[in-house]
Parts: sequence; C-alpha cells; structure tokens
Amino acid sequence: MNNPSDQPETAATDAIHFASRTSVEQVEEGQDLAPKFDRDGLIVCVTTDAVSGDVLMLGYMNRDALEKTILTGEAHYWSRSRQVLWHKGATSGLVQHVVEMRIDDDQDAVWLRVSLSAGTHSAPASCHVGYRSCFYRTVELGSGKIAYAETEKTFDPKKVYGDASNPTIL
Amino acid sequence: MNNPSDQPETAATDAIHFASRTSVEQVEEGQDLAPKFDRDGLIVCVTTDAVSGDVLMLGYMNRDALEKTILTGEAHYWSRSRQVLWHKGATSGLVQHVVEMRIDDDQDAVWLRVSLSAGTHSAPASCHVGYRSCFYRTVELGSGKIAYAETEKTFDPKKVYGDASNPTIL
Repeated sequence: MNNPSDQPETAATDAIHFASRTSVEQVEEGQDLAPKFDRDGLIVCVTTDAVSGDVLMLGYMNRDALEKTILTGEAHYWSRSRQVLWHKGATSGLVQHVVEMRIDDDQDAVWLRVSLSAGTHSAPASCHVGYRSCFYRTVELGSGKIAYAETEKTFDPKKVYGDASNPTIL
Repeated sequence: MNNPSDQPETAATDAIHFASRTSVEQVEEGQDLAPKFDRDGLIVCVTTDAVSGDVLMLGYMNRDALEKTILTGEAHYWSRSRQVLWHKGATSGLVQHVVEMRIDDDQDAVWLRVSLSAGTHSAPASCHVGYRSCFYRTVELGSGKIAYAETEKTFDPKKVYGDASNPTIL
C-alpha cells in the first residue's frame, strides 16, 4: 500500500485551478484563470528580459508546463521538437527566473518577464544558437533583407549543449 | 488588354522573396529570409511597444500579412476569428507603425517593435477590450490568482468598435 506509484511525479500539477471557459466576459474581464489550450494542448508563451525588455524567445506550454511555471517560478515549456516537458536551463544552466507572469485578453497567450541565470559555460543568455535572444536578426522593412542585431555570440553552443540534437526543424 | 484584373490587388506581394528552407545552418545563421509557416499557413508574431518595451499583443500572420507588413511598415495580421487579412487599425484607427522587425533562430516567429497611433476615440492603445496592452492582467506565482496590471481602460471599446463582433473565441 506504500507503492511509490501512489505518489506520481505529476501530483503537484493539481494545485493550480484552471477554470472552464464559460463566457467572453468571464475570460476577458473576470478573475478566473481560464487558459485556452489549442488542438495540440498548447498555449503560446512570449518571454522577455525583465531588465532590457527584449524578447528572448517564443515558446509553447502544455498544461503541465504552465502549472509548473506558476508553482516553481522557473520557466517550463513543452518542447515541440523533442515532445517532452522542458525545464529551461536543465541542460545549459540558463534558467529563467520569472519576475512576472501575464495573460492576454482571450487567455490564449502568456507573457513571462524573466531574469536570466548565467550557465556553466555562458554569460546570461537564452538562445540555443549562442545569442542572448533568439531574435538576433532584423528583417529590413521594404526589402525583407536580413541583418544581425546581435553581432557576437554570448556563448559557444557546443560547450553548453555538447552533442544534444538541434531543436530547429526545417 | 487593359483589363483591371491584370493588376490584381495582391500583385505587390511578389516583391518580397521568401527562400526555401534547405538546412539548419541556412535558417539559423544565413542571410536568407526563410520563414516557416505552420500547417494553417501562419507564423506567430509578438508585438511590443517600441518605447516602453511592453508586450502589446500576440498575433498571427499568413504569407500575405507578413509581406504587406514588410512592404508598408504597418502591422498586418491574419485574423483567425474572422479569417481575413487584418490591417491593424483599419477599424479603430489604432495603427501600429513598425520601428523594427526581427525574426527568431528557426524563423518560425516574428517580433515587431511598433509605435502606436492614437485612434479617433482613443489614446494610443492596442487591445480590443480597451486596455493599452492585451496583457493587462498578471498571474500570481504560486497561486495562479489573477490581478490587474492596468487598472483603467484607455478607451471605450463600444465607441471605437461599435457593433463589430468580439474576436474572442471560447
């Protein structure tokens, strides 16, 4: 009767109550946290640097990732390429500490303002390519030409991620 | 031979070249604009206030909306609720002037830094509910409780949008 399976690792995920979505008024102007997950069970999340305001990354959360982020104050996502819960920084040390979480009008998007940890081999950063922000390139208006907003990488991704597979999918 | 249909309204959309996605290196570290549209033909877009850095909204663009945004310097989106190209501000006057466009590492997300126009019945704002940002509510860490980060609406949505249908979908 003391089987460890009685205490599944996901037990804590019941601690946050997500309300059913019953009306536009409730969702937009109420006090209920009633997030809308899409047909894949995901909600989109934009993450900004709490100090600079720069957008660091855009990710996705499933119900479990959203709950764990609220409960722990550290950003968790759902990795669409690896199909696993992704505690940001678990591999790289580049943990995102949530300073503030917001949700949008129709509750189908989350905004995290975070402060960044330095990693074992890196100054504070967020992008697997080695830049501080995933949005390290500009698109020129009028032409669509690409230019680099960040001119130097913050870290060497080979040192931080080793042989881990690249998450980019063509 | 001078039929107006020879000059369709969408002719200008051929002006921006979107490259085919051929390798991770090309997508992440190259000079090609090679956006990835999802199975619905959309790319996600986060829009921030160029002055305050606040996230104003999260929207979606189809190929046409992305091209029109690059060509005109005014934010265009694809309205998922109305299923139409959406020139932000066409109804409300709350046009978003793009100060800078960025694209992320795997080119499946766009970031717009914009300056806001005032509308006919409104100070500069972005959210159809009447707030400056769509992210006008916080989610408390630990509990998931909702609180209001913006305590007053910037405009009266009835005056700005009249009888237009609410875009929120339950």
